[in-house]
Amino acid sequence: MTSASMKPQYGWRRTLYEIIFESDTLAGKVFDLILLVVILTSVAAVMLESVESIRARYGASLNVFDWVVTVLFTVEYVLRLLCVNRPLRYATSFFGIIDLLAVIPLYLGLVFPAGRVLVDIRILRLLRLFRILKLTRYMGEADALKRALVASRRKITVFLVAVLSLVVILGTLMYVVEGPENGYTSIPVSIYWAIVTLTTVGFGDITPKTAVGQALASLAMITGYAIIAVPTGIVTAEISRTRTREDGPEPLLEPVGQARACPRCLKGGHTADARFCKHCGAALGPHRAH
Amino acid sequence: MTSASMKPQYGWRRTLYEIIFESDTLAGKVFDLILLVVILTSVAAVMLESVESIRARYGASLNVFDWVVTVLFTVEYVLRLLCVNRPLRYATSFFGIIDLLAVIPLYLGLVFPAGRVLVDIRILRLLRLFRILKLTRYMGEADALKRALVASRRKITVFLVAVLSLVVILGTLMYVVEGPENGYTSIPVSIYWAIVTLTTVGFGDITPKTAVGQALASLAMITGYAIIAVPTGIVTAEISRTRTREDGPEPLLEPVGQARACPRCLKGGHTADARFCKHCGAALGPHRAH
Amino acid sequence: MTSASMKPQYGWRRTLYEIIFESDTLAGKVFDLILLVVILTSVAAVMLESVESIRARYGASLNVFDWVVTVLFTVEYVLRLLCVNRPLRYATSFFGIIDLLAVIPLYLGLVFPAGRVLVDIRILRLLRLFRILKLTRYMGEADALKRALVASRRKITVFLVAVLSLVVILGTLMYVVEGPENGYTSIPVSIYWAIVTLTTVGFGDITPKTAVGQALASLAMITGYAIIAVPTGIVTAEISRTRTREDGPEPLLEPVGQARACPRCLKGGHTADARFCKHCGAALGPHRAH
Amino acid sequence: MTSASMKPQYGWRRTLYEIIFESDTLAGKVFDLILLVVILTSVAAVMLESVESIRARYGASLNVFDWVVTVLFTVEYVLRLLCVNRPLRYATSFFGIIDLLAVIPLYLGLVFPAGRVLVDIRILRLLRLFRILKLTRYMGEADALKRALVASRRKITVFLVAVLSLVVILGTLMYVVEGPENGYTSIPVSIYWAIVTLTTVGFGDITPKTAVGQALASLAMITGYAIIAVPTGIVTAEISRTRTREDGPEPLLEPVGQARACPRCLKGGHTADARFCKHCGAALGPHRAH
Repeated sequence: MTSASMKPQYGWRRTLYEIIFESDTLAGKVFDLILLVVILTSVAAVMLESVESIRARYGASLNVFDWVVTVLFTVEYVLRLLCVNRPLRYATSFFGIIDLLAVIPLYLGLVFPAGRVLVDIRILRLLRLFRILKLTRYMGEADALKRALVASRRKITVFLVAVLSLVVILGTLMYVVEGPENGYTSIPVSIYWAIVTLTTVGFGDITPKTAVGQALASLAMITGYAIIAVPTGIVTAEISRTRTREDGPEPLLEPVGQARACPRCLKGGHTADARFCKHCGAALGPHRAH
Repeated sequence: MTSASMKPQYGWRRTLYEIIFESDTLAGKVFDLILLVVILTSVAAVMLESVESIRARYGASLNVFDWVVTVLFTVEYVLRLLCVNRPLRYATSFFGIIDLLAVIPLYLGLVFPAGRVLVDIRILRLLRLFRILKLTRYMGEADALKRALVASRRKITVFLVAVLSLVVILGTLMYVVEGPENGYTSIPVSIYWAIVTLTTVGFGDITPKTAVGQALASLAMITGYAIIAVPTGIVTAEISRTRTREDGPEPLLEPVGQARACPRCLKGGHTADARFCKHCGAALGPHRAH
Repeated sequence: MTSASMKPQYGWRRTLYEIIFESDTLAGKVFDLILLVVILTSVAAVMLESVESIRARYGASLNVFDWVVTVLFTVEYVLRLLCVNRPLRYATSFFGIIDLLAVIPLYLGLVFPAGRVLVDIRILRLLRLFRILKLTRYMGEADALKRALVASRRKITVFLVAVLSLVVILGTLMYVVEGPENGYTSIPVSIYWAIVTLTTVGFGDITPKTAVGQALASLAMITGYAIIAVPTGIVTAEISRTRTREDGPEPLLEPVGQARACPRCLKGGHTADARFCKHCGAALGPHRAH
Repeated sequence: MTSASMKPQYGWRRTLYEIIFESDTLAGKVFDLILLVVILTSVAAVMLESVESIRARYGASLNVFDWVVTVLFTVEYVLRLLCVNRPLRYATSFFGIIDLLAVIPLYLGLVFPAGRVLVDIRILRLLRLFRILKLTRYMGEADALKRALVASRRKITVFLVAVLSLVVILGTLMYVVEGPENGYTSIPVSIYWAIVTLTTVGFGDITPKTAVGQALASLAMITGYAIIAVPTGIVTAEISRTRTREDGPEPLLEPVGQARACPRCLKGGHTADARFCKHCGAALGPHRAH
């Protein structure tokens, strides 16, 4: 959604838009800061509420606080709907849905006395943080990382397919070798074990007990280790490359074609500090800084 | 096996070949898609069948489904044999054997009422996926990864020999220090522990209990950590290098062959500062900046 | 704090300063060596004292040794205060506080018969090591590492925010899916589990038991693995870049400044193919091959 | 030890030296191959002997085999002593000591009816493998890896000191926070835990139980993860650099100073396929392949 089409041309709705959606004005910055604090405390509250002992003691207060946040977010949601030019488009955008999910659980809870699942959707309020982050200079860096990942997506896909095949075959092998009596109760469980092992997480909830199983696991770990070096390699190579292009070391020579040509012999290849043509000795014009 | 020698010149066998072995025609693409779906559901069925509770409930249906897949694959296998020029060469090729292994377990199961092992060979149907993948553009990427691994094979071999020696000696040391009473029941088991530790998997099924054992393990983990950085380094360096060659940053000089062509001999490959053709000595025109 | 303002101009205080704060004189080097040994043995003593069996047997001796070290460090602290030009500034500097924390626990222990906490502050004596290290040539290397980390700080921040969001959402999901009955007793505990898993530590104190939980964990581990390759990539790219600048491969062209000097203006920085000085336009002599 | 000074000038001792110490002759190659097989089977035997069930059943045969190997290695050791020019220098060299350690345990076992420790020294026979490997072309690769590690040694030292400090402080903190009742029985044990955690091994034999401990551990894991990316970065950068120098991509231009100079204008910078000077158009002499 482009800002242009969403932002009202004038009036209080434009002012409201600038406060709620942008952060160029003082009011907009203050709004963002308050939003940041409310989101973080609200998420913290959801997290703490899940702790048995805290719920027993502060359950009532947390509940009140949650309703306060819900009302605040509801007001904000309504204001957002009011001040954009195309409310439906906002409501169906990624952040529009997140904004709705941030308020709806408690209202739904009034209708259906639902269990844990419904209430815990509130944690998605965390994603609202990205709305604020989106406005910051960090997005450039995030973009660089995303570009590196996107540029490597094919290599990563190939790698994932290879790893998944390896994991399915290794899991099946271990299921056959170790069997249900050693914790490898089914092929899916064995595949879960294979993933836990090859990613070097190694919970240890299921471990090979037989000699053949341990030998196989050892082989898998060592081979796996070599294979698992690959994604790091891919991403690193990609970041290195992006990095070099963006803000790499000062080039020894100006890049070909961008350099000042000599006015007499028309040849280029002069370094940035050159005052005379290195080919014919003619004086060069002043160097434009870029 | 080159396509040329395997593909019939004309007739229904040629059409069949194009459908089954290739994916350039519409029929070939549809065939590949169906094959993909059958393979994936069949593998999923094998996996689910291994789960106790699912087997108890849907065992019969899964068995029927498995026979359907087996018959389908059998028909396909026979068709493949029929339409290639050299059936024996196909049958002994890597994919020929995989195709056979995909159908044989159930037939063998009729003869020998065998246990788990035989039936689970069916999981190798998964490898049939690579036949389909082989035809896609992802193979280029897979090749790049393979080249990076192959180019590093000697360094990796040296690394593996060093790691294996380390692991044998560390395992023996821990066996001596901790002994069978702390879970290090034999040298092979201790070596298994050393591999689990040095690859940072760390199951925790066997852990050092004595102070000396813990000190030794700490030393091994830290040293090991430094050592284990090596394969990542090797692979990354290799991928970086390949990457640079392929589509790296703009070279300081114009890439060979894209530069100005010689007006006399029409050959390229001149550097940016060349004034005369290096092939025939003719004067080159002035270099156009781009 | 610049040395200049802290170092006395003359007298015994200057001599003392040179011994205690610097390591250019023989006395200064001997002082540093003794300090190094005292710090290391003192830290070792604190560590050993925490071992039940050693405390039972050698508790008294260790206590005496600790008082000896404390008195030594106290004398040193007083001397440091005496010989610097601005004692208050030293006392409030990072190392000044560390120096105080190294001696204060035992004295405070006389007043308050405190528990473990107070006494274990003594381990911070270890940080005094960095005072000695600061004077060595290793600081250049440490600086290079620090620069690489600082240069990547924005990318690392973005990465950490992304990982933290992922970890909070994954933790909440697992709390909902697995629930308290499988060890995921609260959202914070589930987040702890998510961190343990995504960093590939994998203690195994909490593990998914349900099929959905294991599938989710598998997905998280594989996705997480790809994501976790990113910081390595960032740091590696940064170190590679620094490295290249410092002492990289031979450049295609002669490094600026080391090349042939102009016979007229004596300035360097000419590329290998230069025929005229780029600074003054004088003709350069032929290029000597090396 | 240089070959020159150790190798006899003539006679049967020279022949023996060529067989035992070198691998240029056929006899030398056969000797190496036999040695390789004997070492590997002997090490395998030591490993298998440590397995309770195998020792119970094949203990006698393994013992006989071990004596056969010991006698063979003894004969070999004596022959080595006989055929080198300076036996003492050989006996005190690294491989000389390994050769002795390979035979001595069983003889000592006759004198002292010693336990496990003595016998398991036999596993060091494995190191004899490197004597054979030393003669192969893989040493070049091993050297490249070693150079990369040596070149990074200062950065790695700084890194290790930083990690060790972190580990000591983290260990002490966890000891204070969790205490002996949660498995953190002493500071050394807590440091062991910190190493297990920061290297991402994560056995899970000791895990934080309190909320503060889990929060601290989470922080340590995430911070640690960023830090731990550093050695990989260091080694990768070093390997990349070595790689580039050794056998990097074909340079676009011949390296400065090695290129053919033009016989007329004396300028260089010609690519390998140039037949005419790009500066003045004169014919260049034929290019010498290197």
